[in-house]
Amino acid sequence: MTERLALNQWTTKGWSLAEAVEGCVSAGVAGIGLWRDKVAEHGLDEAARLLRESGLTVTSLCRGGFFTAPDWKAENEAAVDECVALGTDVLVLVAGGLPQGGKDLTAARRAVADGITTLAPYARERNVKLAIEPLHPMFCADRAVVSTLGQALDLAEEAERRSGCENVGVCVDTYHIWWDPQVFGQIERAGAQRRIHAFQVCDFLVPIPADALLGRGHVGDGVIDIPAFVRAVRATGYDGFTEVEIFNQDVWDTPGERTLRTVIDRHEQLMRASAEAPASATTLRG
Amino acid sequence: MTERLALNQWTTKGWSLAEAVEGCVSAGVAGIGLWRDKVAEHGLDEAARLLRESGLTVTSLCRGGFFTAPDWKAENEAAVDECVALGTDVLVLVAGGLPQGGKDLTAARRAVADGITTLAPYARERNVKLAIEPLHPMFCADRAVVSTLGQALDLAEEAERRSGCENVGVCVDTYHIWWDPQVFGQIERAGAQRRIHAFQVCDFLVPIPADALLGRGHVGDGVIDIPAFVRAVRATGYDGFTEVEIFNQDVWDTPGERTLRTVIDRHEQLMRASAEAPASATTLRG
Repeated sequence: MTERLALNQWTTKGWSLAEAVEGCVSAGVAGIGLWRDKVAEHGLDEAARLLRESGLTVTSLCRGGFFTAPDWKAENEAAVDECVALGTDVLVLVAGGLPQGGKDLTAARRAVADGITTLAPYARERNVKLAIEPLHPMFCADRAVVSTLGQALDLAEEAERRSGCENVGVCVDTYHIWWDPQVFGQIERAGAQRRIHAFQVCDFLVPIPADALLGRGHVGDGVIDIPAFVRAVRATGYDGFTEVEIFNQDVWDTPGERTLRTVIDRHEQLMRASAEAPASATTLRG
Repeated sequence: MTERLALNQWTTKGWSLAEAVEGCVSAGVAGIGLWRDKVAEHGLDEAARLLRESGLTVTSLCRGGFFTAPDWKAENEAAVDECVALGTDVLVLVAGGLPQGGKDLTAARRAVADGITTLAPYARERNVKLAIEPLHPMFCADRAVVSTLGQALDLAEEAERRSGCENVGVCVDTYHIWWDPQVFGQIERAGAQRRIHAFQVCDFLVPIPADALLGRGHVGDGVIDIPAFVRAVRATGYDGFTEVEIFNQDVWDTPGERTLRTVIDRHEQLMRASAEAPASATTLRG
């Protein structure tokens, strides 16, 4: 059941890149999602070699974006180049928040639209797809002014219209979008347009911890009906990886092997629950 | 500039009802928004008498709702009755979250739609308007499965269609909806349908505090372009009160008189900024 499971390497934050690769290979997890900082720690060329030899699929690189920062263009082009080196065709884009001290959300969103449109041809020439990731609205001010899947798709359509590039899509992450009353219709739209470039899962924990960024939990530990999302994404014809990305201090304090074992166990439960009738989905739990 | 300003009494949480009424009258603030718990502390009949004699407009009563709780019907009818006693025609509805341990968001939203439809005739017979308040998506699981203004308006339309009652509308609260890419279109829709039954303002503080409920700040202290919201709401023809509702430990630790003075000062700045061209709105600050 793990053939389409990917470990996002921040889930096992205590592991180096080499340990994460070794962990996935040992456990039979076929995919890994990477972060630029972890790759840089290891050295890009050496990381690329390690991954090539491992046989793992690199499902995505996190992250480009932050289009409201002054150096966004060089940073994003570098991120695209790293995708090429690492053998992944998906760069996840986190839009960036309001400029420091600014309150003009409309202008910030316009800057994001312009940035994506500018970046798309550079990425297309290198066979890299851009996956715009809507972040939960609680991160709108400081991390991402893209807050819903519908908005991300509007941006992808705009970038395609303006640049002529078809490589712009979205990252569907259950944690960020589960609350959205329009979400299932937008997943359908994303799938129909073949714009689901990444599918990340984790749960939403309640209460939200003191550091709101760290309220992500193992599948089944929170409030999201994740099987419903798996069914919706699969129903569009998406047959890519399901990448598990968890930011959580308790998870990070757990040895990597144990965390990966939990990820695998929950993934197997999730796949079973997703194959069942919707009514039973609410009982998923580790 | 304070003729259409209302103090929501939770902003001065340390004040009893009598102190809040006295504070508003002394400061020339014409409106007050009440909470059921504070009214109960004072005693309903005595509170009603106090408010009548004060000459204040009671802009709203918080709150009905929580339609996913077992006793929702009796609680909401009691809340409507209290509106009548207190001389306000607006009951704010906070929908309620997922049932304990449940993950079926669709079913919870259905229960809310049914609850509002059921409550509407009871309220209409008593000349009370229902103001559905969308809450920030970070409260979706535990407080309100109504997360956007568009969703609240859909619910209001559904309740009217099913019950034949025209008294169902929304509460527009800047803190909860500022991030929504569709928000200005939805404010226009709400105004065109004459469904803006309450307008609450406060700012969104970043970073979010450890208790996410308390991240509300005085107008100007956070990331929201509040003048843009005042302009949008006023442009629909809304000429009711602007009610200031702040949950914030520092504000609560400040003497009521000082907090009310800050509320008034910021309101005056806000009214000036809202009357100016949009470009200057981003500099609003106390």
